[in-house]
Amino acid sequence: MVRYFIRFSYDGSKYNGYQKQPKMRTVQGELEKALKSINANKAVSVSASGRTDAGVHAYGQCAHFDLSTSITCEKLRSALNSLIPDDMYVRTVSEVSDDFHARFDVKAKEYVYKINMGVYNPIEKDYVYQYNRKLDIPEIERALKYFEGTHDFRSFVKIDEEKEDYTRTIVQTSLKRDVKNVNTITISILGTGFMRYMVRNIVGLLIEIGEGKYKSEDVIEILKMKDRTKAGMCAPACGLYLKDVFY
Amino acid sequence: MVRYFIRFSYDGSKYNGYQKQPKMRTVQGELEKALKSINANKAVSVSASGRTDAGVHAYGQCAHFDLSTSITCEKLRSALNSLIPDDMYVRTVSEVSDDFHARFDVKAKEYVYKINMGVYNPIEKDYVYQYNRKLDIPEIERALKYFEGTHDFRSFVKIDEEKEDYTRTIVQTSLKRDVKNVNTITISILGTGFMRYMVRNIVGLLIEIGEGKYKSEDVIEILKMKDRTKAGMCAPACGLYLKDVFY
Repeated sequence: MVRYFIRFSYDGSKYNGYQKQPKMRTVQGELEKALKSINANKAVSVSASGRTDAGVHAYGQCAHFDLSTSITCEKLRSALNSLIPDDMYVRTVSEVSDDFHARFDVKAKEYVYKINMGVYNPIEKDYVYQYNRKLDIPEIERALKYFEGTHDFRSFVKIDEEKEDYTRTIVQTSLKRDVKNVNTITISILGTGFMRYMVRNIVGLLIEIGEGKYKSEDVIEILKMKDRTKAGMCAPACGLYLKDVFY
Repeated sequence: MVRYFIRFSYDGSKYNGYQKQPKMRTVQGELEKALKSINANKAVSVSASGRTDAGVHAYGQCAHFDLSTSITCEKLRSALNSLIPDDMYVRTVSEVSDDFHARFDVKAKEYVYKINMGVYNPIEKDYVYQYNRKLDIPEIERALKYFEGTHDFRSFVKIDEEKEDYTRTIVQTSLKRDVKNVNTITISILGTGFMRYMVRNIVGLLIEIGEGKYKSEDVIEILKMKDRTKAGMCAPACGLYLKDVFY
C-alpha cells in the first residue's frame, strides 16, 4: 500500500460540491471513479483537506489516498488527468508516509473571494460575484482587520449539535483591487481552520458593511454575540475559491 | 418605427455562435426572442456588427434593430436584460437615426486573444486558450508588428467564391502579459475590418512562431503567398473576445 498526496484544481460551477453524493456529479466522485480504474478496479477512498460547497472553486485543493500498487508520481498524475473531466486538474502528485492525513495535518488554508462592483459581466458570472454596485472599500478593509486573531465564530456558522469548538484563528487578511479592472476586488482570508459557510458569511457581512448597513467596528460586537442571526447575509458560492492549503 | 442601437456582452461558451440557426441556442436567436415579446409579439430582426463563431466571447458586441413602438432606452435595457439568459447582458441602449447600420457603419473593431502558457487551469478552460507551454514572446511581438498595415489576408481566411476583396487594414496590435499571472498573455488586434477565422488564423501562426516553427519575418512571405495552406493552424475559439466596436 502506498499513500499519495495530490494538489488539484477545479471549476466548482458544474459540480454539486466536493463531497461524494449518490447520483450527483461531485469532485470526490469523479476522482474516486478515476482512481478505481487505476487501482485494478478496487475502490479508492479520497480524503481531502476539507469539502467545498456546490459552486465553490479550488486552485489548490489537497487530498490523500492509498493505492494497492506502487506507480510513479508522474505516471499517476497523467493517468488521473486523462481520466478525470477537463474542469478538474491534478497539478502535483507526491508519495507521503502512511500517517500523513490531508485533513488532520492542515496547518492553514487560504480562501479568496472575488466581487465585481462594476457592470454585470456575463462572461464571469460563475467566477466572480456580480454585486454590480459600489462598496465602501476603506470601511471593508477596516472591518476585515477585526477578523484577524482568534475568535469564537458562532456568529458566522450554522450551529451543529455535535460540534463544541467554534474557535478558529485568522492569521492574515487582505483586500486587493484588480490591476486591470478597479471595480473587481479580491478578499483573501488565511486561517488555521474554517467551518462550513464561514468565509461566505464573513464576506456577506463585509458586503453589508460596504453598503453602510453596519459599521466596521460592529464586527467586534457581532463576534461577541455568538449568534448567527446577528450577522449579515451569506455571500454566493460562485465568488469563492479555496486558493491554497498549507501543511 | 424607432431604430435602437445596443452594446452587449456574452459568454460564447454556451452558444452555437452569434448567428441564428434553427433549433440551436444562438446569441441572435435569444435576442430576437426577447425583442419579439417586447415588440407586441411582432418579429424583430437584429443586425450585429458581425458574427462571432461558437465559443467566441464578446465584451462589446454591437447591433441595431427597429421596434414598431417607442420605448425609453432605459426601459428597453431592463426589459431586454430581464428576458435574455444571464450569460448575455445588454450594457447600453441608445436611439439612432434610421440610416444607421451596425454592420456597414463600423469604423474599426478590436479583438483580443488570451493564452495561458502556464499550468492547465480548469477554471478558465472556456475563457483562455490552455496552451500550457512556454512561447517565445519577443519573437511573437516582432511577428505581430508585421501584420500592422494594409494587406491581402488570403493566407488567413477561407476563400469564398463570391468574395473578391481580401484586403484589410490592421491599425494597431499589442501583446500584454497579465500583471498577476505572467504566464497569461493577451494579444490585441485593432483593425478596420475582419473576415471569418482571420484573427484565429493570425493567432495560430503567432503561436507556431512562438514555438519556433516559423520565424517572425516569415509573416511577410506568408502574407505575399495569399495561400491559406502556407500559414499555421487556427487557434481555438475559447481564447477569442470581440472586445470593442468603433463607429
